[in-house]
Amino acid sequence: MIELTLIGIGTGNPNHVTAEAAKAMNAADLILIPLKGEDKADLAGLRMEICRACVTGPATRIEGFDLPVRDPATPDYLQRVNDWHDAIAAVWQARIAAHLAAGGGPKVAFLVWGDPSLYDSTLRIAGRLERHMPLRLRVVPGITAIQALCAAHAIPLNELAAPVVITTGRQLREGGWPAGADTVVVMLDQGGGFAALDPEGIDIWWGAYVGMGEQILIAGPLAEVAADIVETRASARAGHGWIMDIYLMRRARPQAAPCGTA
Amino acid sequence: MIELTLIGIGTGNPNHVTAEAAKAMNAADLILIPLKGEDKADLAGLRMEICRACVTGPATRIEGFDLPVRDPATPDYLQRVNDWHDAIAAVWQARIAAHLAAGGGPKVAFLVWGDPSLYDSTLRIAGRLERHMPLRLRVVPGITAIQALCAAHAIPLNELAAPVVITTGRQLREGGWPAGADTVVVMLDQGGGFAALDPEGIDIWWGAYVGMGEQILIAGPLAEVAADIVETRASARAGHGWIMDIYLMRRARPQAAPCGTA
Ligand SMILES: C[S@@+](CC[C@H](N)C(=O)[O-])C[C@H]1O[C@@H](n2cnc3c(N)ncnc32)[C@H](O)[C@@H]1O
Ligand SMILES: C[S@@+](CC[C@H](N)C(=O)[O-])C[C@H]1O[C@@H](n2cnc3c(N)ncnc32)[C@H](O)[C@@H]1O
Repeated sequence: MIELTLIGIGTGNPNHVTAEAAKAMNAADLILIPLKGEDKADLAGLRMEICRACVTGPATRIEGFDLPVRDPATPDYLQRVNDWHDAIAAVWQARIAAHLAAGGGPKVAFLVWGDPSLYDSTLRIAGRLERHMPLRLRVVPGITAIQALCAAHAIPLNELAAPVVITTGRQLREGGWPAGADTVVVMLDQGGGFAALDPEGIDIWWGAYVGMGEQILIAGPLAEVAADIVETRASARAGHGWIMDIYLMRRARPQAAPCGTA
Repeated sequence: MIELTLIGIGTGNPNHVTAEAAKAMNAADLILIPLKGEDKADLAGLRMEICRACVTGPATRIEGFDLPVRDPATPDYLQRVNDWHDAIAAVWQARIAAHLAAGGGPKVAFLVWGDPSLYDSTLRIAGRLERHMPLRLRVVPGITAIQALCAAHAIPLNELAAPVVITTGRQLREGGWPAGADTVVVMLDQGGGFAALDPEGIDIWWGAYVGMGEQILIAGPLAEVAADIVETRASARAGHGWIMDIYLMRRARPQAAPCGTA
């Protein structure tokens, strides 16, 4: 019986690692870290660094592995992602089997960027693995890019007792401002998804590499800062070779809000 | 110049404290902890315990203070909350002034349940304080009840690349299932807000005291487990004298989704 632990490690700031995450890394017999595949992002190195900083004993093996790539020939997005998850699960299975065959212990851990619940496929892949080997699954929560963004700007996520939508750049482009909320957090945007909106009355808080040394923050009325964000993003991406960014937008409520509630 | 740090400490599991939060607590000259006011929840004691476990040096003063109460005579909800935040800011100001007058250092910290950005008033109160004393504000993110819930159930927050709404029990009761998302997280529910919905096709993952010793989890089709949740909640609340619970609901998409994407 494999004890599989998915460990949220935060979004790049090694200080965002929780005590539980550090303990879980040290309790693992094997930690598997994907080495490639995240759209050129330099995350493998960062994950490895965070892992090395946390793992104090020699009992834990840390191994990198190459992630399979998505098949661009599969036209349907969901199908392409599903096939990809199947392929990753097969790699996991092979690596875990090799580890066990070499006499390794049953505690296997994966480090997950941010929190394992948020726009991450590790839980879905673990679900596939479960069909092939008996496992006990445990999830260790981590700081998400959403908390990191709000902390960096020192802003609340929600307005007083009001709802919030978390969505993707793709959804924003296809559907415009989501119904039902005046605050929207956008992740997984390839850049400038906010251009799909009429900027009137919308404020934006944008951040790239949030929590890392490279952190960049821009905030203001969308109409005034949109161009700056698009430019800054493009040049940062060119400079680093990769980028991860996230933004929160709030629109003024149609009816006047009591002062001090925003 | 006051250096005010709002420190997210997670939602009750002392192991969810991040390295950054522990460092920020130890760097503070004064940590102020509200002793009352959270609807009978035993959080003051828990906050104090987490704080004592993290603060290793004698240089940090830990002080409790009594929170003012909301004035039930103010009929308008937002106005009532705003008045209350004003009153809390006045108490903060007095306590910080007294600390400085006694020769205390300028680094003041507040411990915030979960993450400071999520349904929490500390940032808004800090904004009021800013009008009365010069301050440099810093926010340390923390694990939210949302991550703790998803980790406890080992479930993703979102469906593949799909949006999520975070809302309150009150909003759910007043507006029904929010537009624009098939996943909804409900916080700040006084109990059974999901009863406002037609349960057909909805799954629920509920948790109380998530991450704590008292943790209770229930999951299943809403139609089957709703009564169990309502009963379990009522008896846990009666037994402990307080409760904090949260739930995630997902509804089947109107159109058939590709297999394995849920
Ligand atoms: C595949 S998702 C993973 C999210 C992660 N599980 C979390 O909890 O934040 C990747 C997206 O998260 C956001 N993101 C992650 N880390 C970030 C960072 N350090 N700065 C800005 N955005 C980040 C970006 O929107 C990026 O497109
Ligand atoms: C005032 S809000 C504060 C939320 C907090 N800032 C966070 O980041 O989770 C309080 C609500 O959070 C949720 N909550 C907080 N801690 C919880 C816990 N340990 N278990 C379940 N729900 C919790 C409940 O929905 C509760 O009504």
